Amino acid sequence: MNILIRMAFLGTGYHGFQVQAPGRPTICGTFQDALQAVLGTRPDVKGCSRTDAGVHARAYCLNFHYDGAIPPEKLPLALNQNLPGDIRVHSATEVPPTFHARYSAVEKEYTYELLNAAIDDPFTRGQYHRITRPLDENRMQAAAALLRGTHDFATFMNTGSPVNDTRRTLTHLSVARRGQRVVITAAADGFLYNMVRILAGTLADVGSGKTPPKAVVDILAARNRQNAGPTLPACGLFLHRVVYPGL
Amino acid sequence: MNILIRMAFLGTGYHGFQVQAPGRPTICGTFQDALQAVLGTRPDVKGCSRTDAGVHARAYCLNFHYDGAIPPEKLPLALNQNLPGDIRVHSATEVPPTFHARYSAVEKEYTYELLNAAIDDPFTRGQYHRITRPLDENRMQAAAALLRGTHDFATFMNTGSPVNDTRRTLTHLSVARRGQRVVITAAADGFLYNMVRILAGTLADVGSGKTPPKAVVDILAARNRQNAGPTLPACGLFLHRVVYPGL
Repeated sequence: MNILIRMAFLGTGYHGFQVQAPGRPTICGTFQDALQAVLGTRPDVKGCSRTDAGVHARAYCLNFHYDGAIPPEKLPLALNQNLPGDIRVHSATEVPPTFHARYSAVEKEYTYELLNAAIDDPFTRGQYHRITRPLDENRMQAAAALLRGTHDFATFMNTGSPVNDTRRTLTHLSVARRGQRVVITAAADGFLYNMVRILAGTLADVGSGKTPPKAVVDILAARNRQNAGPTLPACGLFLHRVVYPGL
Repeated sequence: MNILIRMAFLGTGYHGFQVQAPGRPTICGTFQDALQAVLGTRPDVKGCSRTDAGVHARAYCLNFHYDGAIPPEKLPLALNQNLPGDIRVHSATEVPPTFHARYSAVEKEYTYELLNAAIDDPFTRGQYHRITRPLDENRMQAAAALLRGTHDFATFMNTGSPVNDTRRTLTHLSVARRGQRVVITAAADGFLYNMVRILAGTLADVGSGKTPPKAVVDILAARNRQNAGPTLPACGLFLHRVVYPGL
């Protein structure tokens, strides 16, 4: 039986999704510990994305195969009883045998969340990047509109994972302010390494007045990481949604 | 110089505001440690309210007197550098010598925040009370309207702190849903011990169908704690606003 799990996690205490050396807790390893406790076996787990250390997820997806001795609808409660409170399983559903949480995904949506304030927020520590200087979200939104579509996004990629093709289709990129929060939402068929964090850093430079909105056209066309803004820290990044056809 | 401090804190790690025995961290004690570090003295601090262990505040107010060697506008940054991240000072302003954070307050507003869901939220742990059974916020709002005004609120008080007069004026009581969140907002000239948490427990009983909305009229009139709903846990309670005339 192939099971799709949807879950939320606060990434602050984890070294990303992918299992690492012992002593470095990861989302995948912690989830497999819970599977072991519930199923008595430790299935291989396929995650929808290798999130970096400190990145959060509101709707992370993963899948694994098991013999089905426990009906899928009983898994969320059983797994949550064996998971720490910073990881919560929302649902478990049977999917076709060929389903793969990473390769079956046709779109992913991330948010990058900024606190535009002089003082940190004690209620959401580790869940935003704070920028003190005033951000003009209208400038940011104008720049975002110029980056949407199918482009070579080599400018917005850090080296780290080799890729053959740096073209991606950014189906959505928008900026919205809610009080002191400025939220950047980005959806694409796939993202390059650190792409959302570099887009966020570039848009923040536009919002603060350092970069003119229209300059992002040349920044994109340069296909050179040096032309973009900084890679903002992992703590502001949330995997928000993963789209699978027919699910 | 009499200084009014406005600050936010996440109460999860503290045994309430009031200083207690050594080894039990409190908001007041932690704030005085920061004052000691910044001013070199440890002034007496008057808080607007004795919040219980685990209660949070978005706009807690306190005042203290000091010689004014450091201008008030420099205090927030200096204090925040000496406070843990779960306490953040928002402002420091000079107020008249007779100002007292507790006795000068004419109104306080609290929110009680419910998560109406089967699964906990990893991003706001310790910042809500979770109720699984569906809550009808319209029923709750109807009941809330019947409790507003000047009444003897003895029904909604736990024993613990002796009071002569249990009459209070509830200037505002409302219930609003935002997705899975149900937020109860209560404002009054003053609150009895655990009053908001018992009001919240009673309204939750109305929302879940256990208590008819109109029954709160008799519950209030009984002036008997036994007639009200449960005292909901401290983690859902936020001091939201304190009103001082002319400030």
